[in-house]
Amino acid sequence: MKVIGIDPGLRSLGWGVISVQGSRISHVANGQCHGTGTDMADRLHALHVALSAVFTLHAPDAAAVEQVFVNSSGASTLKLGQARGIAMLVPAQHGLSVGEYAPNTIKKSVVGVGHAAKEQVQHMVRLQLPGVDFSGPDAADALAIAICHAHHLGSAAALSRAAGARA
Amino acid sequence: MKVIGIDPGLRSLGWGVISVQGSRISHVANGQCHGTGTDMADRLHALHVALSAVFTLHAPDAAAVEQVFVNSSGASTLKLGQARGIAMLVPAQHGLSVGEYAPNTIKKSVVGVGHAAKEQVQHMVRLQLPGVDFSGPDAADALAIAICHAHHLGSAAALSRAAGARA
Repeated sequence: MKVIGIDPGLRSLGWGVISVQGSRISHVANGQCHGTGTDMADRLHALHVALSAVFTLHAPDAAAVEQVFVNSSGASTLKLGQARGIAMLVPAQHGLSVGEYAPNTIKKSVVGVGHAAKEQVQHMVRLQLPGVDFSGPDAADALAIAICHAHHLGSAAALSRAAGARA
Repeated sequence: MKVIGIDPGLRSLGWGVISVQGSRISHVANGQCHGTGTDMADRLHALHVALSAVFTLHAPDAAAVEQVFVNSSGASTLKLGQARGIAMLVPAQHGLSVGEYAPNTIKKSVVGVGHAAKEQVQHMVRLQLPGVDFSGPDAADALAIAICHAHHLGSAAALSRAAGARA
């Protein structure tokens, strides 16, 4: 199965697709979508077009988005929310539910501790996805989100198998 | 021409369409879209489907959205931003730019003063759109936004005509 992670930010939206086969994961693709245009509606539209193209091309089976810190200014939070609305809409339009993970959960899942530095997260993503080349920092974060989601889906599947074996 | 006003809220998204012919305005339709579903992505998707249907049915020529207060909690602002992202995406997908007006600008345009009470705004919307029946408070606000946008478009057109006459 293919898992996509999405990291919506104010300037660009990062995405990363990984392939999951049992407990093995590998890199498929990653990139950053930019909301071009002078006004906000145009930029959101450009984001929607770009992310929809990613979904059409890679046809992921599962999707996850990072939960957002909301301790910045209200205006920034509102803008981030608008971009995040697009990031959640596109998977739903492709029939996928969207996993949401707090930043610390993602770090813990990828690095093993919840308070890892950004460089440490990128290092561990590189180790787990040999040959990966990040198209940017948001794309690296998006791959970390995808890895986190794959771990959680794997645990859920294992639990379900275990429950089935006991039944 | 037809002008749509959109008022995205946490619980429902209000919309109102008016017809503008010169300085005459009249009511076309209004309603509220609800984001149904258990998770946020599903709810945003439902909002997108519902608002897209409104655009397909009424084919507005211009669109406007209220600027949002961001003095509430960060979590609410983020959610509101997500709904607002959908409210701005749909007009852009239909090739429209989106006017944005502060609440006080809308009130001043509809009532004549910037600090009018909600009931006063609804009263003036009823006066200006005879026979209107609000499907809810968010729809009434959306009609006020549409009226405000029509006034601004009218002023812009008049200015442009005046500039042409002088040229």
